[in-house]
Amino acid sequence: MQTIEIIGLIAATCTTAAFVPQVYKALKEKSTADISLTMYVVLFIGLILWLIYGIYHESLAIILANTITGVLVIIMLALKIKHK
Amino acid sequence: MQTIEIIGLIAATCTTAAFVPQVYKALKEKSTADISLTMYVVLFIGLILWLIYGIYHESLAIILANTITGVLVIIMLALKIKHK
Repeated sequence: MQTIEIIGLIAATCTTAAFVPQVYKALKEKSTADISLTMYVVLFIGLILWLIYGIYHESLAIILANTITGVLVIIMLALKIKHK
Repeated sequence: MQTIEIIGLIAATCTTAAFVPQVYKALKEKSTADISLTMYVVLFIGLILWLIYGIYHESLAIILANTITGVLVIIMLALKIKHK
């Protein structure tokens, strides 16, 4: 695999994994007052569109990254609605 | 332009624009206690790597989306450090 493609994979891993500490913090502290609901709604719409794009282009990396981020974003939306 | 590429552009616009309401909320309320610093640090590393990937592949969409998101993430990092 080319170095640049490995960089792309690490990039995708970072931008997906970034949401794990946010979900963990919200679960632990049961507080989401400073979190923007609009951000996570718009992000979710974007992830669904990326998923469609990835499925069309048969890109496993795009499909995987956006599915996992999508699950984390759904958890954040649920926590935001629960602890508003 | 193909419909699927338009979907990709809308997807990129959503996942970038999503951070605007979060920055606005943090600026207005001067409170970032519920925001995960780790999330924004990991996200920033990912965006830098995406930028390298985009520059290598000469993809204006990847370069633009990640540069704008990067600026918004830097603002969030600054606000998180200021209002911790």
